[in-house]
Amino acid sequence: MKTIGPGSTIGMLGGGQLGRMMAMAAAQLGYKTHVYCPEIDNPAEQVSDQATHGKYEDMSALKKFASAVDVVTYEFENIPVSTVEALSEKVAVFPNSKVLQISQDRLSEKTFLNELGIKTAPFSAVSNVDEAASVLEEISYPAVLKTRRFGYDGKGQAIVKSVNDLEQAWQTLSSDQIIIEGFIDFDMEISVIAVRGQDGEVRCFTPVENRHKNHILDISIAPARISDALKEKAIIQATKIINNIDYVGVLTVEFFVSQNDPKLRVNEIAPRVHNSGHWTIEACPSSQFEQHIRAICGLPLGGTSFIGEARMTNLIGEDILKLPELLKDGNLNVHHYGKSEVRAGRKLGHVTKISVK
Amino acid sequence: MKTIGPGSTIGMLGGGQLGRMMAMAAAQLGYKTHVYCPEIDNPAEQVSDQATHGKYEDMSALKKFASAVDVVTYEFENIPVSTVEALSEKVAVFPNSKVLQISQDRLSEKTFLNELGIKTAPFSAVSNVDEAASVLEEISYPAVLKTRRFGYDGKGQAIVKSVNDLEQAWQTLSSDQIIIEGFIDFDMEISVIAVRGQDGEVRCFTPVENRHKNHILDISIAPARISDALKEKAIIQATKIINNIDYVGVLTVEFFVSQNDPKLRVNEIAPRVHNSGHWTIEACPSSQFEQHIRAICGLPLGGTSFIGEARMTNLIGEDILKLPELLKDGNLNVHHYGKSEVRAGRKLGHVTKISVK
Repeated sequence: MKTIGPGSTIGMLGGGQLGRMMAMAAAQLGYKTHVYCPEIDNPAEQVSDQATHGKYEDMSALKKFASAVDVVTYEFENIPVSTVEALSEKVAVFPNSKVLQISQDRLSEKTFLNELGIKTAPFSAVSNVDEAASVLEEISYPAVLKTRRFGYDGKGQAIVKSVNDLEQAWQTLSSDQIIIEGFIDFDMEISVIAVRGQDGEVRCFTPVENRHKNHILDISIAPARISDALKEKAIIQATKIINNIDYVGVLTVEFFVSQNDPKLRVNEIAPRVHNSGHWTIEACPSSQFEQHIRAICGLPLGGTSFIGEARMTNLIGEDILKLPELLKDGNLNVHHYGKSEVRAGRKLGHVTKISVK
Repeated sequence: MKTIGPGSTIGMLGGGQLGRMMAMAAAQLGYKTHVYCPEIDNPAEQVSDQATHGKYEDMSALKKFASAVDVVTYEFENIPVSTVEALSEKVAVFPNSKVLQISQDRLSEKTFLNELGIKTAPFSAVSNVDEAASVLEEISYPAVLKTRRFGYDGKGQAIVKSVNDLEQAWQTLSSDQIIIEGFIDFDMEISVIAVRGQDGEVRCFTPVENRHKNHILDISIAPARISDALKEKAIIQATKIINNIDYVGVLTVEFFVSQNDPKLRVNEIAPRVHNSGHWTIEACPSSQFEQHIRAICGLPLGGTSFIGEARMTNLIGEDILKLPELLKDGNLNVHHYGKSEVRAGRKLGHVTKISVK
């Protein structure tokens, strides 16, 4: 156990809205946050005690950062593994770099999951169009081509409905590290936000139902409208995953839910707090952000009960212009991330409505 | 209406825990906070975007501060009136300086309240021991001597049980601006947290019951265990007060509750968010801090409903050492103010327990 108490400083790689909400949860418990990210104008810094602006490859800046903080965590998963490994020599980093190695590559992530006996979409790694064509004959159409690394919010993905789409899809992705996934005809996407403490205790929030628009999360509804048996199964699988990578902190598992077996397939895992867990801020005694801080600081985990049904809606791009209207509903919990530039597809805030049981 | 939108900067005079929680509420709505206070190591700055360290009399520093922010507010009431007036020439300041003039002097505060037809303890201003002795003969013993200005948490107060105590009590207070208050034999102290928007709309949270230890707030229980009729009466009086000073923001009214008439007497008013309103963070859709930010920024007010009974307990001085134990109860909402020095009588944090209805 590496317990650090209130008054200590949490180093955070990344300065986005997840970092912003994490810094506020840290502050509630009496911790200071020191943000490290390349961007000068970033949401997390506005609520943090300190900030360092540097590249994730700047080893000298990272070394100085490591000596100024008591523990390090990250708020997004595309941090170079070498960055985390370098920091780990100077200061405790949670989660560890192992999970980054697994989750940064769709091939290693799916292989890891299947080895645990957890179902995913059928998949195969390919490096050129000819390989892709022969794999697709086996997996059958439609299928999804995805870059193995650095994809998010539908970026780095292309659907191929027939062999005629293949050449163009391949060009779009402009990478030779591609994974082909069989198309899953799912009814719903759900996610489980799990947290694991330094002592190995695992707690999960109730599974949440996610709806997307233009490949970006639009609405999350908690609890997900699925059977209790399926909820339990999802929680068991998330617990298995988080336990098998010696993980400390919050980890999110996204599942596809189908009517036919297997009813659950893991879509992907995210080694961090997640957009689909924002509802926990108002609905649970300890939010996903507080749970993460508790875990990495070696504190006992918080409660995961919820006071009622929650519905979280993202404010993406020009959605933020609805803010004056949304603020008129005094029972809506409004979150604005303090980003100055309104761009299409950019997550700028969210609102949560709780219907108390 | 002086509406300022998210992305704007709120200037805040004072850097204590009230400012810290206000800055976090501001950040949730997308505002930046710029703290102005003399103390270099202060709780609010840790979660604020900017800070200026200066005295409240430093007009040149205040001028620069005013030009860097979009609106100014304060988190404690002992700001010099001249400071607020100087700032008001450059930038909107809410609440206005009128309420400071009234509330900084117990004599003007009680006179103002009585003129509104609102009951207080009987009182009389005196400037020497002989005057005090003759007033006490009229008001009768026991009574309380209080300095007219700058008292808080029982500081600047002395009880006189008989004429024999008077000389010593007078010496303790070392001031010639004293108010003598008749001793009120009350059953309970309650407070009403009221908020008034720029458009004149007023909303009040349900009255909260307060228990003190060593003259410092120890526990607040919401809702207060009094009749609905008395709750309504307290809310009507608080609304009358906040409407009569053209107030914008959160104002707190403390009442003594007695079984005999008058059942309600105002103890004091605080032109700010209040320790007895911390329970609103978890129990209400919009906390007292968010309400204050909404009001001063010209936004619609938030909801004041509550999800269940709340019990807030302060962590004062060495109480903070109980933190590891308190954190084990995952359903307790723990707040640590990030103060580095543990001193007897110092408010270092609080915990809130909600029992959902």
